[in-house]
Order: sequence, then C-alpha cells, then structure tokens
Amino acid sequence: MDGSHWVNMNVIIEALHSRGHQITVVRAPDSWYIKDTSPYYTSITLETESGFDEDFTTDFAAKLLELQREGRSAWARFKLEMEQLHIASKLHEGTSKMLELLFENTNLMKMLQDAKYDLVLTDPVFPTGIIFAHYLRLPLVFNVRWTSFGEGHFSIAPSPLSYVPLPGTEFSDKMSFLQRVLNILGYGFGKYGAASHVSIHYDGIIRKYLQQDTDLESLYQAADLWLMRVDFVFEFPRPTMPNVIYMGGFQCKPAKPLPADLEEFVQSSGEHGVIIMSLGTIVAKLPPDFADEIAAAFARIPQKVIWRHKGKRPANLGNNTLLVDWMPQNDLLGHPKIKLFVAHGGTNGVQEAIYHGVPILGVPLIFDQRDNLFKIETKGAGKNIDIITMDEEIFYQGIQEVLNEPSYRMNMQRLSRLHRDTPMKPLDNALFWIEFVMRHKGAAHLRTESYKLPWYSYHSVDVMLFLVTLALLILLCFGGLVWSCCRVCLKRKVKSDHKGKTD
Amino acid sequence: MDGSHWVNMNVIIEALHSRGHQITVVRAPDSWYIKDTSPYYTSITLETESGFDEDFTTDFAAKLLELQREGRSAWARFKLEMEQLHIASKLHEGTSKMLELLFENTNLMKMLQDAKYDLVLTDPVFPTGIIFAHYLRLPLVFNVRWTSFGEGHFSIAPSPLSYVPLPGTEFSDKMSFLQRVLNILGYGFGKYGAASHVSIHYDGIIRKYLQQDTDLESLYQAADLWLMRVDFVFEFPRPTMPNVIYMGGFQCKPAKPLPADLEEFVQSSGEHGVIIMSLGTIVAKLPPDFADEIAAAFARIPQKVIWRHKGKRPANLGNNTLLVDWMPQNDLLGHPKIKLFVAHGGTNGVQEAIYHGVPILGVPLIFDQRDNLFKIETKGAGKNIDIITMDEEIFYQGIQEVLNEPSYRMNMQRLSRLHRDTPMKPLDNALFWIEFVMRHKGAAHLRTESYKLPWYSYHSVDVMLFLVTLALLILLCFGGLVWSCCRVCLKRKVKSDHKGKTD
Repeated sequence: MDGSHWVNMNVIIEALHSRGHQITVVRAPDSWYIKDTSPYYTSITLETESGFDEDFTTDFAAKLLELQREGRSAWARFKLEMEQLHIASKLHEGTSKMLELLFENTNLMKMLQDAKYDLVLTDPVFPTGIIFAHYLRLPLVFNVRWTSFGEGHFSIAPSPLSYVPLPGTEFSDKMSFLQRVLNILGYGFGKYGAASHVSIHYDGIIRKYLQQDTDLESLYQAADLWLMRVDFVFEFPRPTMPNVIYMGGFQCKPAKPLPADLEEFVQSSGEHGVIIMSLGTIVAKLPPDFADEIAAAFARIPQKVIWRHKGKRPANLGNNTLLVDWMPQNDLLGHPKIKLFVAHGGTNGVQEAIYHGVPILGVPLIFDQRDNLFKIETKGAGKNIDIITMDEEIFYQGIQEVLNEPSYRMNMQRLSRLHRDTPMKPLDNALFWIEFVMRHKGAAHLRTESYKLPWYSYHSVDVMLFLVTLALLILLCFGGLVWSCCRVCLKRKVKSDHKGKTD
Repeated sequence: MDGSHWVNMNVIIEALHSRGHQITVVRAPDSWYIKDTSPYYTSITLETESGFDEDFTTDFAAKLLELQREGRSAWARFKLEMEQLHIASKLHEGTSKMLELLFENTNLMKMLQDAKYDLVLTDPVFPTGIIFAHYLRLPLVFNVRWTSFGEGHFSIAPSPLSYVPLPGTEFSDKMSFLQRVLNILGYGFGKYGAASHVSIHYDGIIRKYLQQDTDLESLYQAADLWLMRVDFVFEFPRPTMPNVIYMGGFQCKPAKPLPADLEEFVQSSGEHGVIIMSLGTIVAKLPPDFADEIAAAFARIPQKVIWRHKGKRPANLGNNTLLVDWMPQNDLLGHPKIKLFVAHGGTNGVQEAIYHGVPILGVPLIFDQRDNLFKIETKGAGKNIDIITMDEEIFYQGIQEVLNEPSYRMNMQRLSRLHRDTPMKPLDNALFWIEFVMRHKGAAHLRTESYKLPWYSYHSVDVMLFLVTLALLILLCFGGLVWSCCRVCLKRKVKSDHKGKTD
C-alpha cells in the first residue's frame, strides 16, 4: 500500500532490518512512495503498473475534497460515498489484474516459493498481500488500520453496533436512538459496497489460484496477527481479539534537535510560541480561496507559523508565516515552543500530536480525517473547523480558542501521559509479535476459526429457530392434549347429563 | 475469597509488597486460608463469620464429589447443578449479611474511607469486594477467573455462543449443531441460576447502601481492570476487551532445589523417573475405594510415585509410592526426573504443568476441573479418566499411555514454549496494570460503558424493530398507492367500456 501507509510500513521494515531480518518488498513500477532501492530491503518490481501513482492519487483526492466541500446534506454524502466506492472499485480492478499477472508469472512465483520466507507482512487496505500469502502458504501479519471492508476491527472482532460507531459517522460510543439507527444503516451500506465493489474483483482469482471455496473476507480473518495502528487513548473502548496487537503511535519518537535555521525561526517567536500546520500529502494543492483565508488569519496573530504548503504562495501571507515544502514534523511537535498543531487529521499526525501532547486545530479534508479529529475533539484535546463554512474569521477564532483555553492543552497532555504509560513501547511490542509468528510459524492458538461458520450459525440463528420451533411443537402437542381431554370430558358430561335425563 | 483463590491472591500481594505498596486485607474471623498476621499485609478481621470455613468447604466438596460419581445422565447432571446452585445461594446469603453488617459498622467504614486507599483488589467469585469498592468510590481491580455469574469473560466480553463453549460443557470452540443447542440452553440455565440464587441476595444492599438503581452484574462490569488468570495457550481463542489483562501462569516460577530427602527419593527412581499426584485441597479425603484402586495401580509400575494424600493410608500401597501431606509441587514439576503429573485439574496445577511442560493424567473431581482437563486433552497434552468408571486397570492403562506415547509430552512442551514466549512475564504485566490504575485513578479509557444500555438497545433489538416497522409501513403505503391506482384505472376502464357500449 502506497502513500502515508508506506511511511508506517517503512518504520517497521527499518526496525526489522536493524534486528537482522532480511526483507523483500514487492512493489509496482509506478509506485509513488515505495522506492526500488533501499538500504533496508531488496525489492521485486512487478511488470504491471498498479495505476495508483502520484497523479492518480492527488487527482482523486482533489475530487473527493471538492465533493466534501459541497455540503453535508444526505444527497451530498451519498454522492461522496458513491464516488469513493467507484474509485475503490476501479483501484481493486487494477490490483486484481496485477495479482493475476503475478500468479501467471510462474518463474517469479517459483522463486518466491523457493526463497522460503518466514512470513508475509502487509497493509491490508488492498488484499493483494493476503491472497499472495495464502498462495505461498506463509504466515500472515497485518500492519493495519483499514481493510478493503472498512475499519479493521469490523472484520476481526465482534462489533456491537449499539456502541461501536462506524468510522465516518462522527458518533461516539454513546449514541442516541437515531444515531444507532444511522449506524446500522451505514453498516448495511458498507456491506453492500464491499460485496459489489471489492470482493467481486477477487472471487475469480481466489477460486482459480487458491483453489479454495472461500470468500475474500475469510482470507482476511485467517491472518495470524493484526498489528493495529491505534490504541485506546485514541479509539473508543470496544471488543477485540487475542491476535490483535495495538501499536498505535509506534512511529513516534522523542524529538531530535531542529536544523539550525528552523531552530532560529522557532526561537524568534519569543513568548508567543509557534504554530505548525500541515494538511498532509494526499491533498497536494489546496483550492486558492482556501489557502488565502488561512494565510489572512495567520497574518493576524502574534505567533510564528510554519506551514507545510504546496501550490501557489498566497498573496496575503504574513511576515510571521514560513512556507515549507517539508518539515521535521515529529521534531517540531516535540519542541517546547510549539503551541498548536493545525492538522488535517491523518492517523500519523494525530498520533504524533498525542505522543507530544500538542493540542490540535483540526481542518479535516477527506477519508477518515473528520473521524480521527472528532475523537480528539470528543476528548477535549482539540477543536475542529468545517471546511464547508470555513473563512478567515472562523479559522482565526479557532486558533484563538485552542491557544487561549487551557483545557485543550491539559486534555491533550493527559492523553499523552496515558498513551506513553505502557509496559512496552508499541514498536517493540509489534516486533516481538512479528518474531513470535516467525518462531512458531503462525499464531493459530490466538486466532479463532469461527469465521468458517456460515453467518446463521455464527449468530446462532439456526439454533434459535430450532428452539423456537421445538417450543411451538411442544405447546401445540400440549394444547392438542388439553383439547382432546376437554372434548372427552365434555362428551362424558353430555352423555351423563343425557343419561340423567333419560333415567 | 478463600481456598485456592487465596493462594493466587497471596502471590500478587507479596509482589505488591515487595514493590513498596501497603496492603490491607479484609477477612472473616473463620477464614480457612487467610491468616490474620502476615509480613506482607495488615489485616482487618470482621466480626461476622462467613460460614465459609474449612469444615463447611470440605463437606460440600465431598457432597459434590458424591453427586459427580452418580453418573453423567441428564438427571444426575441436573441434580448436581441444582445442588451447586443451592450451596451458592446459601453462601451468598451469608456473605451478603456479612456485607450488610460491614456497612452498618460506621466506625470501621469511616476509618476505611479516611485511609484513602488507591484501589480495591478482589477475586470476584463473591461480590463483597465489588460492592465494598463502589461504596468507598475506589478504583476496582479483579484477580479473576470466575464471577458470581460464571466464567469471567461472559460478564465482560461479547461471547458468541456459537464458538465460545460454556465451562462445564466439555465442548471445544468447534461445536456440532447439537452442542451449540446445549451450549445456548446451558447459558439460559446459568442466567436463571444467577438471577434466582445470586443477585437476589444483593439487590437490597445495592439499593440501600450504594443508593444506585443498578444491578449486580453492572457493578461487575464497571470494574476498571480484569486480571484474568488464563492465557490463550490454555483457553480457546475468543473475544476480549481492552481492560482485560491476561496473567495465566503468573504464579509459576523456575523450580528451586528440592529438600535433600525428597531429592534422594526422586534420584532413586533411576531411568524410570517419577510420577507426582495431587488431587488438590478442597476434596480433602478421597473415598477409600477410590484411593485403593489408585494405590494398586501405582504398585504395578516401575516408576517412583509421590502422592499428596490425606485420609487413611491405603493398605495396598506399593513400596515405590511415597505418601506426603504437602509437596513443593512447582519445584517437583520443574525437576527433570518428573515424567507425569496425575492431577485433579485445578487451574493452578494445570498452569504449573503447562509452565514446566509435564503431561497430565487427569482425574477431575468437581467444579471446573473436568473443563480445565478437557482443554489439555483437546490439545493432546494429557489424557483424562472418568471417576465414575475408574478402577485400577483403567488408571494403570492411563498412566502407561501418557508415559509411553511421546506425543503427550511433546504437545505439553509445545504449550510450554508458547506460554513462556511473551514479551513480559505475566506477573510483571499484572503489577504494571495494577499500578497503572493507581497512577491514573482508574482506567476509564479502557472500559466500555455499554453495560449501561438496556439489553434491547445493547443488542439493537429496538433499532431492528424500528427498521422492520418502517419497511412494513413503506411497503404498505406503496401497496396502498398501487391498489388505489389500479382501482382508478379499473373504474375508468369500466366507465369507458360502458360509455363505448352506450355510444
């Protein structure tokens, strides 16, 4: 998986490499982030393109942003969901073709089989790595937040929809009746979307190459280990499974000193401190009106601002604002002068903010960003701005509120304390369990095989129907018996009455 | 909680004491295992007796054993279950009275309130500690395998009855249809038993002293942390919750050298090795016929035997068998000469056998012992003997099979490797999380509050009924519309036909 997902995966690969493991990365030739050479891994570049390159990604991100800005009406949301499904379908079509060509490349597959790898590590947003692992019969470990079917937990753990909110709903774990209705409807829509736009592309491949009469979601559920990129400081409490390991914030580390020029800029802020802003990489270019409003608001504040910005330089940029192409985000967030993080709400950035205890002014753009930031807002550690209504004044007031109301910082620092107070560092824990799967050739004892049950058995529908039928039959028999008895008694009474009369 | 439960609790208390914590133990004056003086804790002895002393305990254990030996027919099992419920009810009646008198002792309660404890640590088989913690408004940590409602997980985590077997059923996580039916019926019976024989004793106390309109099970579910005395090497994989910490085998430690006389006896076994046997403490005296059959079988084998035995010395005891009142079980299990553990299947003993990799010949007596040993048998690490049919020959053949078939030892050693391969020792992990709750005054972020939902909302029954009604209404409206249109069309047609005819 490309983009910010690869940033995460690379952290684990570097760590595995430093512990002496040898890693082979299978990549597409048009990969955006995944380089073909690295000191940490050797790579195999496939012949087929994934179609998932930089242009495609930034284009569809721009399209989604456009749709997001159209409003929050049911119609606008429906259009957005359908567009996302459409893009997902197109991407899955591409990757499934890539997978098919991979399986047809018998030389390569033989080489991979002979290499006797210990396991396949994959980010399962796309199921390529999963089907591939099943083909090679290798233990399977996920570095996961999302699957092709939605948020990871929904595929592996029981998720009672009465208190487990669907991502995208912006509901907490305490829902009103109406919210619970929408949560269940949303779940149904997601199930339809996954069946009609995702699974459909892989069913044939699974039958043909794995020769298994199973479905895509079962292949997910058969994974040995789920290294989940969240923790319960961020996520609402919910059921989990023994083979789910939480490694939220595994990529965070103590801040290193800043480059001299940046440190000088930061120090020049004096007592006011510094605000940093980054809206991620996937929405590469903000609409000009959007950037102008932000620049104008920044120009009004006494703080210094470091803004990671691509695209045209806003004309109204203040002297206090430094535009950069890239910034050492983790090192800045860990700097004592940083007062506020203006963020789009990607999981990586949010986890870094929690780790360093910096409150967030959220400007969610697309995907799960609204949902991530909603969680932060619910915990009082940040405030979010709606991109539909945002203008200079709203943005300015947002900055003022999070800067001047101490509860935001206090709450975020409480989250930071909770997040850091673990018996093991998340990355060490993840590495331990990856190596556990290598040592024991899987983790069968941690993995339920209940996914092999048909849905009506899993949910005990068959047993309940059987018991209800049995109870009805017993009632019926009993009723029949009583009825017969009554009739016999009645007959006797009529007879004896008759006899009495005739006597 | 007394008996073997206290053996566990004491391990944690000693460890907490060694880390500088101060512990106060609240005990009944007639406690069997819990001493009033200890180098590790100070104690408060209540004025009321619990009725749960040694005589009572061994008496009811003997009665249960008698019932167990009556057979496995549905009627025998029903009688056993009812007897267990009857005893439970009697015990809960006693402990609820003890609790009431505790709350009425205003001096003591004030002293406890003023002492500002950090948390209450309790084994929740009886809910005294729980109600007590809620009264004092203190964070609550469980050292748990059983609650008053059954196995711990059933109170805290979703437990799909299609693949989570009820304790006592001897079903695995892969059940036949009939087994699933029985599993659900057993669950229903347990719910009835808990409501009628347990909760009933505490409802008044909860209303009167906690002044909360809640039920006993909700008080359980509000606990901050569940330190579960199992792990998934022992337990079948099943859903869990973020505030459940697994510490199965926390009491196990490397073997210390044996006392000189015992070491001499062990060494005298030569190449044949040693068998150790212990059937626990709760069934203090075995029926004489039972002990005689065992002694006779032991007399036929070349191995040496160390048998922890209370009661009359069997007349037919062989020269190779050493009867002892007590033995250093952990040190013996860790001794390389030990070939086999003949055990009743208490959780402590089973965990020690797993830790040291010694295969088990199981002789389950009462309670959860059959179930514990069934799990070991399912994993091929032991074989069980039914006490109903057991005689000298069956016992002898059982010993021969586990000693001579290498798979038993190999499987148990595989379990041992899996059990020991953890990033942290179970006791250290448990201590970390106890101290975590002290540091953060609870663990609210790990604990779902979904238990506050009424059952029909938790299971989304209300939402489903609403959606079905809505769908029916829409269908009805649509049907009505179609019907009206048809009628209008029909009328027109009839009219035009009529008109056509009259024209």
